Amino acid sequence: MHPLRQHIEEIISLSDDEFDFVLSHFEHTKKRKNQYILQEGEIANKEYWVLKGCLKSCFFDDNGKEHILQFGMENWWITDYESFIKQSPTKLSIDCIEDSELLYITYENREKLTQSMHKMERFWAKKSKYGRIALQNRILSLLKNSTKERYELLLKQYPKLFQRVPKKLIAAYLGVSRETLSRLKS
Amino acid sequence: MHPLRQHIEEIISLSDDEFDFVLSHFEHTKKRKNQYILQEGEIANKEYWVLKGCLKSCFFDDNGKEHILQFGMENWWITDYESFIKQSPTKLSIDCIEDSELLYITYENREKLTQSMHKMERFWAKKSKYGRIALQNRILSLLKNSTKERYELLLKQYPKLFQRVPKKLIAAYLGVSRETLSRLKS
Repeated sequence: MHPLRQHIEEIISLSDDEFDFVLSHFEHTKKRKNQYILQEGEIANKEYWVLKGCLKSCFFDDNGKEHILQFGMENWWITDYESFIKQSPTKLSIDCIEDSELLYITYENREKLTQSMHKMERFWAKKSKYGRIALQNRILSLLKNSTKERYELLLKQYPKLFQRVPKKLIAAYLGVSRETLSRLKS
Repeated sequence: MHPLRQHIEEIISLSDDEFDFVLSHFEHTKKRKNQYILQEGEIANKEYWVLKGCLKSCFFDDNGKEHILQFGMENWWITDYESFIKQSPTKLSIDCIEDSELLYITYENREKLTQSMHKMERFWAKKSKYGRIALQNRILSLLKNSTKERYELLLKQYPKLFQRVPKKLIAAYLGVSRETLSRLKS
């Protein structure tokens, strides 16, 4: 079974014809490590689904310090949702931490597909709700937990991330220096 | 025009019959100041839409300190989306800051309505996306901005909040003490 079909069918069921119709709205692309799929100031007109590889969405504060909003690995969706939904310039950058293979759907195609196919509207509505839950939990964690607790939560939630992602990026996600991260690990 | 219809029609258009059908899935309730609509450990099986009044969703950390995740005023939707979507016990509490008049839809009715009416699936999908954007921006702000900057952002985004909500709750939203808040204001 196509990995995207497997992924979608975790939420809704599709016939062969329906999946072919869905897939016809997607394009395939490969990116090398360090290549960008979205850069600050651009309008995010694609939503990506990770077939293989690892990416990060990040932003830079006024002092040029990098903060990571989200990682994306196999089966994850990634774009800047604010820019994508409002079709406005993004404050974020998204680039590849590893060589990556991606499927993407443009804003126009996603609109067409969700308008013509209630099931896919339902699929993305559910995905969006789960994305919202993840963000809500990150806020609760930022407000409530110590850096050490946030480190342990991340380790528990995404153990694979620690094998694949350089330490300095884990530090940028947690909002600490590499030195602090090293202390947390020991 | 019914205020809920006006609110929904900002995103999708409805015929009279369609709106009557939508409204038949809602119930009306009034709550006094300080009453809860959701308490820690319960399952959120209702999503509320604020007709009149002001509410807050909050949680308590291990030291009993209150943190505010969200306020809700007229035209805002409020529930614990994690508990509502997963139908699992909530970590949050939601209570009324003012006497409030609310419309609510149960989880079952919302499922029925979105399954039978693509337009309403679309409406809530869009609402959920906007909720996600707000949460994303709050994370960026928590990672990037100083307390003073976060105070100014809140003041700019929701000037009405400062007239209606006690200072100590603004402080609990920003994650600072009342004394720090007083210094920020001067």
